[in-house]
Amino acid sequence: MRTLIRGGTVLSTTGGTPADVLIEDERIVAVTEPGVFETAGTVLDATGKYVLPGGIDAHTHMEMPFGGTFSADTFETGTTAAAWGGTTTIIDFAVQAKGTSLVSTLDKWHEKADGNCAIDYGFHMIVSDVNDSTLKEMETCIGAGVTSFKMFMAYPGVFYSTDGEILRAMQKATETGSTIMMHAENGIAIDELVAQSLAAGRTDPVQHGYTRPSDLEGEATSRAITLARVTGAPLYIVHLSAAEALSAVAEARNEGQNVFAETCPQYLYLSIEDLAKPDFEGAKYVASPPLREKHHQADLWRGLRTNDLSVVSTDHCPFCFKDQKELGRGDFSKIPNGMPGVEHRMDLLHQGVVAGEISLGRWVEACATTPARMFGLYPRKGVIAPGSDADIVIYDPVARQTLSAETHHMAVDYSAYEGFELTGKVETVLSRGKVVVSPGGFSGGRGKFLSRDLCQYLN
Amino acid sequence: MRTLIRGGTVLSTTGGTPADVLIEDERIVAVTEPGVFETAGTVLDATGKYVLPGGIDAHTHMEMPFGGTFSADTFETGTTAAAWGGTTTIIDFAVQAKGTSLVSTLDKWHEKADGNCAIDYGFHMIVSDVNDSTLKEMETCIGAGVTSFKMFMAYPGVFYSTDGEILRAMQKATETGSTIMMHAENGIAIDELVAQSLAAGRTDPVQHGYTRPSDLEGEATSRAITLARVTGAPLYIVHLSAAEALSAVAEARNEGQNVFAETCPQYLYLSIEDLAKPDFEGAKYVASPPLREKHHQADLWRGLRTNDLSVVSTDHCPFCFKDQKELGRGDFSKIPNGMPGVEHRMDLLHQGVVAGEISLGRWVEACATTPARMFGLYPRKGVIAPGSDADIVIYDPVARQTLSAETHHMAVDYSAYEGFELTGKVETVLSRGKVVVSPGGFSGGRGKFLSRDLCQYLN
Amino acid sequence: MRTLIRGGTVLSTTGGTPADVLIEDERIVAVTEPGVFETAGTVLDATGKYVLPGGIDAHTHMEMPFGGTFSADTFETGTTAAAWGGTTTIIDFAVQAKGTSLVSTLDKWHEKADGNCAIDYGFHMIVSDVNDSTLKEMETCIGAGVTSFKMFMAYPGVFYSTDGEILRAMQKATETGSTIMMHAENGIAIDELVAQSLAAGRTDPVQHGYTRPSDLEGEATSRAITLARVTGAPLYIVHLSAAEALSAVAEARNEGQNVFAETCPQYLYLSIEDLAKPDFEGAKYVASPPLREKHHQADLWRGLRTNDLSVVSTDHCPFCFKDQKELGRGDFSKIPNGMPGVEHRMDLLHQGVVAGEISLGRWVEACATTPARMFGLYPRKGVIAPGSDADIVIYDPVARQTLSAETHHMAVDYSAYEGFELTGKVETVLSRGKVVVSPGGFSGGRGKFLSRDLCQYLN
Amino acid sequence: MRTLIRGGTVLSTTGGTPADVLIEDERIVAVTEPGVFETAGTVLDATGKYVLPGGIDAHTHMEMPFGGTFSADTFETGTTAAAWGGTTTIIDFAVQAKGTSLVSTLDKWHEKADGNCAIDYGFHMIVSDVNDSTLKEMETCIGAGVTSFKMFMAYPGVFYSTDGEILRAMQKATETGSTIMMHAENGIAIDELVAQSLAAGRTDPVQHGYTRPSDLEGEATSRAITLARVTGAPLYIVHLSAAEALSAVAEARNEGQNVFAETCPQYLYLSIEDLAKPDFEGAKYVASPPLREKHHQADLWRGLRTNDLSVVSTDHCPFCFKDQKELGRGDFSKIPNGMPGVEHRMDLLHQGVVAGEISLGRWVEACATTPARMFGLYPRKGVIAPGSDADIVIYDPVARQTLSAETHHMAVDYSAYEGFELTGKVETVLSRGKVVVSPGGFSGGRGKFLSRDLCQYLN
Repeated sequence: MRTLIRGGTVLSTTGGTPADVLIEDERIVAVTEPGVFETAGTVLDATGKYVLPGGIDAHTHMEMPFGGTFSADTFETGTTAAAWGGTTTIIDFAVQAKGTSLVSTLDKWHEKADGNCAIDYGFHMIVSDVNDSTLKEMETCIGAGVTSFKMFMAYPGVFYSTDGEILRAMQKATETGSTIMMHAENGIAIDELVAQSLAAGRTDPVQHGYTRPSDLEGEATSRAITLARVTGAPLYIVHLSAAEALSAVAEARNEGQNVFAETCPQYLYLSIEDLAKPDFEGAKYVASPPLREKHHQADLWRGLRTNDLSVVSTDHCPFCFKDQKELGRGDFSKIPNGMPGVEHRMDLLHQGVVAGEISLGRWVEACATTPARMFGLYPRKGVIAPGSDADIVIYDPVARQTLSAETHHMAVDYSAYEGFELTGKVETVLSRGKVVVSPGGFSGGRGKFLSRDLCQYLN
Repeated sequence: MRTLIRGGTVLSTTGGTPADVLIEDERIVAVTEPGVFETAGTVLDATGKYVLPGGIDAHTHMEMPFGGTFSADTFETGTTAAAWGGTTTIIDFAVQAKGTSLVSTLDKWHEKADGNCAIDYGFHMIVSDVNDSTLKEMETCIGAGVTSFKMFMAYPGVFYSTDGEILRAMQKATETGSTIMMHAENGIAIDELVAQSLAAGRTDPVQHGYTRPSDLEGEATSRAITLARVTGAPLYIVHLSAAEALSAVAEARNEGQNVFAETCPQYLYLSIEDLAKPDFEGAKYVASPPLREKHHQADLWRGLRTNDLSVVSTDHCPFCFKDQKELGRGDFSKIPNGMPGVEHRMDLLHQGVVAGEISLGRWVEACATTPARMFGLYPRKGVIAPGSDADIVIYDPVARQTLSAETHHMAVDYSAYEGFELTGKVETVLSRGKVVVSPGGFSGGRGKFLSRDLCQYLN
Repeated sequence: MRTLIRGGTVLSTTGGTPADVLIEDERIVAVTEPGVFETAGTVLDATGKYVLPGGIDAHTHMEMPFGGTFSADTFETGTTAAAWGGTTTIIDFAVQAKGTSLVSTLDKWHEKADGNCAIDYGFHMIVSDVNDSTLKEMETCIGAGVTSFKMFMAYPGVFYSTDGEILRAMQKATETGSTIMMHAENGIAIDELVAQSLAAGRTDPVQHGYTRPSDLEGEATSRAITLARVTGAPLYIVHLSAAEALSAVAEARNEGQNVFAETCPQYLYLSIEDLAKPDFEGAKYVASPPLREKHHQADLWRGLRTNDLSVVSTDHCPFCFKDQKELGRGDFSKIPNGMPGVEHRMDLLHQGVVAGEISLGRWVEACATTPARMFGLYPRKGVIAPGSDADIVIYDPVARQTLSAETHHMAVDYSAYEGFELTGKVETVLSRGKVVVSPGGFSGGRGKFLSRDLCQYLN
Repeated sequence: MRTLIRGGTVLSTTGGTPADVLIEDERIVAVTEPGVFETAGTVLDATGKYVLPGGIDAHTHMEMPFGGTFSADTFETGTTAAAWGGTTTIIDFAVQAKGTSLVSTLDKWHEKADGNCAIDYGFHMIVSDVNDSTLKEMETCIGAGVTSFKMFMAYPGVFYSTDGEILRAMQKATETGSTIMMHAENGIAIDELVAQSLAAGRTDPVQHGYTRPSDLEGEATSRAITLARVTGAPLYIVHLSAAEALSAVAEARNEGQNVFAETCPQYLYLSIEDLAKPDFEGAKYVASPPLREKHHQADLWRGLRTNDLSVVSTDHCPFCFKDQKELGRGDFSKIPNGMPGVEHRMDLLHQGVVAGEISLGRWVEACATTPARMFGLYPRKGVIAPGSDADIVIYDPVARQTLSAETHHMAVDYSAYEGFELTGKVETVLSRGKVVVSPGGFSGGRGKFLSRDLCQYLN
């Protein structure tokens, strides 16, 4: 089975070049000057379009258990929505419950995902119970293609690890060459602020923001960086939202330490003003870290430009406004944490290109190539090159679209970006050579689990 | 005419992938999975080898006039040596003499170079006389494919521009989208130190280093950055050698300013201890900025890793020890400034890969891809991609070689790296599809002038 | 002749204590618990008042030649105004004209000042012509009690020194233990901006501000600091006005370098909005560096608190609005540079105490004690201690006053602080034991020249 | 009862002046020019000597319970040794045991100290159990003259407070104007390293240093600063030993935050090389934070010069080598933490004056005046001024002495500075007007409890 994508501009991290892409079965077999190959089983005309590697969303939470409910997207609905938005790989999180094993956790997540995904997927492992046995199991996970381990400095009593536990896990990461991912907020101090806020009768969604000040994200980020320096472990800060945290990351990177960070579209486009919307509307925007004051946005864009923010992921974790967010009415601390977004990452970041904030190459790099390199998928994923999986997006850079819950494909009853008007739109998406999204609609995917290598990315 | 490079690992800035490269005439027409094309007019076997874009040395001085003499390499000998070392493009400097026009200067340099180069070449323009007329001529230069302008904060009375002149040229650069390159040393203060040193009878080559302290490079770098911020101009610091200067660059880049810097192999591998060699031997190592204390080297490697140093060039400007360096015996300030190096840049930087200082991708990026993007040659140069010029190096990563004046191809009677033992060696070099260097030796080149676009690189 | 100041709170840099001060002739002979001495020739009741060392204004320009005119205050009127405001010592600047000697310059200034001052005075020397002879003369000046030398990085063609000249003078300062004071603005770049502004027909006073951006003060400050580091000289930055410059000073001080800075009340209270006042009113506020955007003010107050700004002086250099400022109507570059202020420094800074920006101790320190130590007058001046000159201010911390040209004592036809309402007011001023200002008015002074020692202040 | 100290140089934070000091009963009544008062009941000749405020050691632990034993000095022996060394005030720590109240703790410490001290003393309160009741008790403590509260980020299970508890206590400090003192080491991570070290059989005293890396002091310091910023509390870092921590303090202070730090003589003079002494000798040097690599010393001296280190205290907490340090043979974690030092602080810091590291004024400031201001004792203590307590040291700046356990007065069987040869020596010490130490020896003291005000010191 051969497919030829012809007439487009093929994008890489360093720019674009007019070229055709020849696909055989699941893989790219050739990238050529226009017209070298004239026909194939299928010919997709990309004239006037970008041809770029399928997006990799390295941070999603499909059907994740949270406080008695589950995030609203299943692996099926979530990956389908991702495909619609030009994302052809997600890396989701298997969530260890305290007292259970990593291996059984991984089994459980395979059960949820295997056979149900429209696009390829991998797993990170959330380690919430550090002990001799789970540290040993990290090796098993790596053997099973799960090479990155997330820990929490937030959520005491749930996912929280102490600095001693983090230190132990980092030592294991150094030993095995795997990566520690960190949710960096000082949860112990935050929980105190939350309790004080509730005790004082301040229960609205915006209090979620007030009780998680950006200073406490900056602090935890610094602390994680120090622990990584002490142990020699590579460190990846997830969903960085605050200028203070960026500054800590930038300083460590300047020193040459292997510290990386991702941010998410919501921190680039939304703010605490959304969280302060009346009539409990703010609940739609409750995620952790919280949306910040607007001035942080310029810093985050700058961080993307300087590569101090290496990756853009979504932290996609949708909860329906009507049934789920509702759980926290009258007590913001009970609002399920998370926002939908897996479908719009590529489009939202393309606005940064349109606005001149980042180059085309950075768009591809932050959304596809670097996550592939960071999480052991390169060159299978993240690049248009012979031998790579034919995960490809044909993108119309001038089409216009308006985001809305009425038209999106995520299984959630609101959009965080309702009414946003965007320039650029996914036209066609191939997942390992198969067209999954086209102007004709979604045509079904057949996502496979990705056994990942170790991180191939250096500061 | 078709050439197939087969069986190698094709390198890009993001890593390597097994692939074949098909060339037709002067251009790459396809990059494919191994074996897609089986034959061609010429087949080059690259099994076990890297296949990478030809190196771009963005800083050379062939047959440059200096104090009554000329740098020892002609465009012919210099570009031939470059080719031997895997460099397929140089960007040399046309040097405006005070009182002459930029256009006539450019003509003169074309006369020297045209028809004489083994590989492709472009020009930067050294502006030493800023006035209404030369500022206007910058536009003409840009039209003629010379899109970058070098200025000097050193060498008062020769190339030196005042801060007011720099400001004016930067304003013009902002207006035209061109780039200002800066030799950043505080020449006014240095000249005073030089005069004091000579007056005190301190005349040995090592005094060249003592009279140009790294603080004064840091200062000038900071000043250039400030002037660039005030005027909005992109700035490229040439031959950065000092930790203080790197720190100024890193700070500006963190702030998102379009400031870039190159370093040179001599600053990564040699030190003021070389300059202090007895019996006037130190004269071989006289260049400006001077070789520094060893501790700067680790900072420069770190800068390469963090991309605060974006490019590695050579500042190749050889003067023979016997006849030319001799001019400064008894007065270090008369030693012609410059060192040979165009031939060894790719090899020397590969040692950084071997040592784990930088990744393979960074090697390609700093030595080829970024200079191409920085100086308006991308994607014609600097990348293995369909449509690009077939400037390609087949590199043996495990071969061993020893550097020596006896075996090098530069027209100079000493090597700054005499006896250095290296891992990795150029095997074959193609310049626009023609094999110019092969295991059989140098087979002649036919370099053309490169009309360059504006900088395509963002911080 | 004995005077007893009784019942007040005696202030020092570390706070206040209830105490009486006994004066004999010109000196303080005892500081005692209240009531130890009961009578004296004169008894001044300071109940409810502060008793503090007389202010030292280390930066004034009385009858200074500038562009064919002279600053409006003579040594007589200027020092009388100073006394009214609680300042009992000024250090004025002898201004070397190019081509003249430092010694003859000093003679000329002695002629102007000797016998005419209401309070004690010293001189700094402005060195505008650096050569072997003037460098040698620096030693003579030091012997004559002039131990600090001011240089300019601004005003090319007038006071400007090149970096080489600065370097030489700094070497001499290191050798002799004297201090280099620096007007740190990049005058070369500024002159270009000024010329461009005038050429474009932008001639209003506010252009004075636009053509001297704060970045160029930051740059020059950094450069001066680097030159001081290279030469080992102590450095004192005069009239620091910009956050960028403060940041450079703070960084150097953190590293332990002997770098100090003063700011002036106008930079703490006024802004470029004053410079933009219509109808040429802005000309009243033309001084260099220019008044800045308001956001710099908070940084300067912070600098005072952290001692990165060690001294507050006035740069008092008044020109009458009607006759003198007028010279620059239609060409802002011809507006005489300078503002009146010697009378209000103590009062204006006291507002910082009232507002909680600085402590009482810092007020005394920045306005009296540190200038005394910095410029070799301590403990003769700057402290209430036995053996010190009885230069004393009795200050009413709760009195209210309104500043106005109608009531001030400076010989200038406007006030930069017209209508400012202040808390606190000088009640009585003693100059070497003699009451010069009292509720009854000014009663005549008899200021003497102060031969100063070297700087006694360490970072 | 009158005493006259005559002929000396009276020191303050800003320098020295020749003056006589007249004392009546317990207080200074006058500071005068030499000879104003000629006789008194007692005349002490201070010709050629410094007359300075008695030292204030703001950090001592007399008879402190630690792991089943007590620090070796009682309040009697410890304060006597302090007096010998020119210290006339200590502020010791009342140590709350978990589950007990602050008030009962304070009572217990009064019992130990009252009537037994040779010099005046105050208490800080160590809060190890934060809850509604103890927070409320902080107010009671303040009323009882205990206005500073120490917390620990080290020693989990003993004194350790969580970040949430620290946050609460800081909020209370902000509310009451009191000060939080912090032992800033990441005890959670350290305990893990200690456990690993012991498990690996690394049990020698030097492991105490290896398991408490300076990065983890820097981290905790940063964290404490962030929590202080979030809550608005003034923060005082105790016994800062590491360059990383200093850097965090300096940065916060530059920003104007009210963050202060003390260091101790052992960190200025001793190093991890002492901790590595063979035959368990290293145990003598076990204290927390541990002695550091030598390069930290230069940073600490610089911090003293720049006032980023505002205070020098001793953390005096002696344990005898023979019986007490012995407890940790074979398990460094059981070595009682602490070193003797209360007797030598003034002398050891005077070496910094001799070496030109700090000025005379800084010596007085860091050792006496600032601790008085910082801890609410000024102007009663810390200054030679009328009305102040006559706590005075007559110091011979040129006398030579050799430190040794054989001659010191602390109740401990070794000296950490055995054999150190020093320039300068205490000659006479007065405590509230009574001579307690003189060339004739110790003549008995009568120390009283000092009820302290709130901090009177601003950044």
